[in-house]
Amino acid sequence: MDRLRQQMEFILEVDKLKNITRQTYLSSGERKENDSEHSWHLALMCALLQEHAKEKIDVQKTMLMVLIHDIVEIDAGDTYAYDQAGNATKRDREVRAADRIFGLLPEDQAAELRDLWEEFEQGKTPEARFALALDKVQPVMLNAASDGKSWKEHQVALSQILKRNERTPEGSEPLWEYAKGLVMEHVEKGNIKDDSEG
Amino acid sequence: MDRLRQQMEFILEVDKLKNITRQTYLSSGERKENDSEHSWHLALMCALLQEHAKEKIDVQKTMLMVLIHDIVEIDAGDTYAYDQAGNATKRDREVRAADRIFGLLPEDQAAELRDLWEEFEQGKTPEARFALALDKVQPVMLNAASDGKSWKEHQVALSQILKRNERTPEGSEPLWEYAKGLVMEHVEKGNIKDDSEG
Repeated sequence: MDRLRQQMEFILEVDKLKNITRQTYLSSGERKENDSEHSWHLALMCALLQEHAKEKIDVQKTMLMVLIHDIVEIDAGDTYAYDQAGNATKRDREVRAADRIFGLLPEDQAAELRDLWEEFEQGKTPEARFALALDKVQPVMLNAASDGKSWKEHQVALSQILKRNERTPEGSEPLWEYAKGLVMEHVEKGNIKDDSEG
Repeated sequence: MDRLRQQMEFILEVDKLKNITRQTYLSSGERKENDSEHSWHLALMCALLQEHAKEKIDVQKTMLMVLIHDIVEIDAGDTYAYDQAGNATKRDREVRAADRIFGLLPEDQAAELRDLWEEFEQGKTPEARFALALDKVQPVMLNAASDGKSWKEHQVALSQILKRNERTPEGSEPLWEYAKGLVMEHVEKGNIKDDSEG
């Protein structure tokens, strides 16, 4: 029963992920989504889009990876993709968070989830590359559906999105093609600043 | 590209699950949780608590099952566990919803997810029994953490909770022991009406 108690302590603690707000709006544009909603969406995408992964992936492992990939933000907060100052200290804050939060679990599971999170961060396995691609494409889909609301608020430029998605094709070429199509549509519409020619 | 487009149409449509509010409060008691947050929590629980399942389960299949188990509520709404009138029409509303929403997917995946939802509803496989146990235990955990807020609001009685959890031990005995412990604590506290003796 002690083992179950430790597991449930972790499961209750991560309820806090439901209060970590991202910069991406829901497709309706009504409000921003939170990390748990985003993670649910990615896990479902992982199961349904696995055929588009560039390399063969362990689907169950990748689903768990995306379910936990943002849990460190309970302590470290969400750092907006285009926030340079925030991103400078992000790694330190997130490593401390990973130690504390995954450390609530029984030792074997603490190590497993800690490693899985690190694998996502490093982005060097087929699973991590696909998870990273999903993590980049999902907000593009929502931003496009909400008429570019978050792009406009943050005055995001095309070069920033392309830079941020440099490695998306390594996870899935068709998904990147799909996302690029949406991005170019919103450059046309003026929702994304076109800085592609100097 | 047509297949991917159909998949993405479904993935965008189910973004609406983030707006379907349940009756259970977050552990903080601040607000009620929504279906996508709940589904994220269950999928994570499934991965971490699989060792407590009564029978051997296909974990990946069960994770997908809980990720999609509430998607019909996008059309059919959330029917509160103890709402008798709502529960009388629930099945019809949910079957129509399943046809429409899963029908957005390519045929093979539409059939797969439709079947998986039906399997959950029927509760006759080891995967469905474990998923149902998670679906019952998660709100008990949150209700207990929020000092019984939802139980008190709805004046829930012990007999209702026991009836609702009749089949929880068939999914996992240790999880039911854990949940029952929380329930009895909150009967003691007066947050759940004790109607066990007539």
